[in-house]
Amino acid sequence: MKTDLLIRNARQVVTFDQGQFKTFENVSVACAGSKIIHVGDEKQLGLESATVIDASDFVVLPGLIDSHTHTIFAGSREDEFEMKLRGATYAEIAQKGGGILNTMSATRKTSKEELLQLGKKRLVQALRFGITTIEIKSGYGLSLADEIKILEVIRDLREHTPMDIHATFLGAHSVPPEYKPKRDDYVKLVCDEMIPAVAEKKLAEFCDAFCEANVFTIDETRRIFEAAEQYGLKLKLHADQLTHTGGAELCAEMGAVSADHLEHISDRGIDALKNSKTVAGLLPGCSFFLNMQYPPARKLIEAGIPVALATDFNPGSSMTQHLQLIMSIACTQMKMSPAEVIQGVTLNAAKSLDRTDIGNIQPGCKADLVLFSVPNYKYIPYHFGQNHVEHVIKNGRMVF
Amino acid sequence: MKTDLLIRNARQVVTFDQGQFKTFENVSVACAGSKIIHVGDEKQLGLESATVIDASDFVVLPGLIDSHTHTIFAGSREDEFEMKLRGATYAEIAQKGGGILNTMSATRKTSKEELLQLGKKRLVQALRFGITTIEIKSGYGLSLADEIKILEVIRDLREHTPMDIHATFLGAHSVPPEYKPKRDDYVKLVCDEMIPAVAEKKLAEFCDAFCEANVFTIDETRRIFEAAEQYGLKLKLHADQLTHTGGAELCAEMGAVSADHLEHISDRGIDALKNSKTVAGLLPGCSFFLNMQYPPARKLIEAGIPVALATDFNPGSSMTQHLQLIMSIACTQMKMSPAEVIQGVTLNAAKSLDRTDIGNIQPGCKADLVLFSVPNYKYIPYHFGQNHVEHVIKNGRMVF
Repeated sequence: MKTDLLIRNARQVVTFDQGQFKTFENVSVACAGSKIIHVGDEKQLGLESATVIDASDFVVLPGLIDSHTHTIFAGSREDEFEMKLRGATYAEIAQKGGGILNTMSATRKTSKEELLQLGKKRLVQALRFGITTIEIKSGYGLSLADEIKILEVIRDLREHTPMDIHATFLGAHSVPPEYKPKRDDYVKLVCDEMIPAVAEKKLAEFCDAFCEANVFTIDETRRIFEAAEQYGLKLKLHADQLTHTGGAELCAEMGAVSADHLEHISDRGIDALKNSKTVAGLLPGCSFFLNMQYPPARKLIEAGIPVALATDFNPGSSMTQHLQLIMSIACTQMKMSPAEVIQGVTLNAAKSLDRTDIGNIQPGCKADLVLFSVPNYKYIPYHFGQNHVEHVIKNGRMVF
Repeated sequence: MKTDLLIRNARQVVTFDQGQFKTFENVSVACAGSKIIHVGDEKQLGLESATVIDASDFVVLPGLIDSHTHTIFAGSREDEFEMKLRGATYAEIAQKGGGILNTMSATRKTSKEELLQLGKKRLVQALRFGITTIEIKSGYGLSLADEIKILEVIRDLREHTPMDIHATFLGAHSVPPEYKPKRDDYVKLVCDEMIPAVAEKKLAEFCDAFCEANVFTIDETRRIFEAAEQYGLKLKLHADQLTHTGGAELCAEMGAVSADHLEHISDRGIDALKNSKTVAGLLPGCSFFLNMQYPPARKLIEAGIPVALATDFNPGSSMTQHLQLIMSIACTQMKMSPAEVIQGVTLNAAKSLDRTDIGNIQPGCKADLVLFSVPNYKYIPYHFGQNHVEHVIKNGRMVF
């Protein structure tokens, strides 16, 4: 059989068999076009290949998936970071016009072209960290025109990267200052104008909201979700992050693809997710960065809920694109195992983006593969901070 | 004036003036030979230079100093990492022959040549992270021959790297298994044979010990320190890490250059350090990795004690060489400011190695400089996980 790309004799290949973590040692992965066609002994099939990579020093994982990011923003907030270290709270900074609104102002002022340039640089970095699929949210525009601008940047980025990009509309990230005295009008704007416009232009696949005390209430979130559903957008949520609001329960009830954050999920919330198809999207970089409570990863896993992990890359609460470091944080701070954190950034992250063709290494899957220069998969989160990626293959082609 | 290297028009240069953190914007740094000769407006001196680097996009810091590492070891301990995540304690793993003794076995079995190769790779990585001076301890040999072997590897590494390497003898890292029934004989071996041999061969500048419950007592440490002093070795200590032993007080009393770890330092220990010349060497990567208590950085700083930060790079309790990430951990988890963490890996780290010619950017200092691709110094720990180093200059020469 002829193949286009053969990854020969990998030290270890990580796969999932019926959702179960499984490794193979000293096997080859063959790709034809953009698909994986064979995992196993190459001699069985008598494979010939145009391109051969000797993987005897590498561990092969499915391309990593960063399923929750806010990659398109202007400016940075290191001054607020310093204020926080001196004791200012997230809420205090937000009340002073800092926080999300700080980035909103900077992003509104920045042209589409400049945002595109920033985005391109960041996606190159993400690829270097082994990320082949990324979700990116709007949410720093908070006006119809600015939200559309950001979503168009996300759309246009697809021409500049081999990565798969999933766009999420997050108009309900914060109430912008001009709507503070009339917040209900902003919810109406989101529901009646933004969502229809975003859907009509096909600029987003998902709709997300920041359901939180002093941001959007559970009732407002429900209205937003209902509007999103009406326009064919799938649902995601910033749920139970800083306080318990019942966001997880709402996600379960409305069939959201993921309920993200969950630092303050209740036992009822866990029960609700358990009986739903919603993935728990945990973002421990945020807990690390803000030095706040971590989500109850073990409880969620023990309840049988699929747990995804993502960077939450954003300038206010998780300024990192280093998904491998997030895996280390998830191990050391939430007691997830190396196998669980790998599943969190591959199979379960795919599920949280409603994808079944990525996040695994099996015949028929997309040929998105990362070669790590490590002795075994456990070593990736163990040796922390280091970027262990040596090669990235996207759609069957070697990117580097 | 003619110079060999001119770093022109840096966005920001970080210096210390009488120990006070101070930045300059849009200045140049001129080097002649291996020294810095001028910091300021290049036009004032009419500088001409053979090599010019345009630094308008870069922030310049003194070369970073990793003042506490165990860089020379064989093997890795990702299996123990996983056991710990499942609930096994550090002490339990040690009792099962894991921990330091696991790495001791692997290191004893490994040839000098192989250790040298491992060391060379790791120093290349350290340089990429912006480290121009490193301290490396022995301590995985725990026999006269094996400790000498490791110290000779550390010595020989100097021929393969431009970095400054400081060697520390840590024979008292653990009691090796063959001495378990007769631990006092091991302390005698350290004092009466190892220290004299290491001193005679000039293989180490510092002597360190792991003063800890179930490792070396405060009395044993005192004996080791007295022997070290007698042979002209300067003192460092693993002090008050897992429990309070009074290690900090001993360091202050005996004039150690640094008391490292200090997770469980007492108020008396803080008072003792305050009235001494001993630097507090904090290793928050260890607290992060083991998910244990952090040292009281703010209390130490508020007491006026110089605080250094280091990776503690080792396979059991801090598997990282990423000193910039340690800075981020120190900010987010110990509430140190960006300026304080920079001082911790430059000026104060130099002090903890008894050096005054590095860790600062001033005329007369060694031309060890790192150019970071960031908008300002605060951004370095803020944007965490990323390696922000763009260029490294060591002894006045651009390494990359």
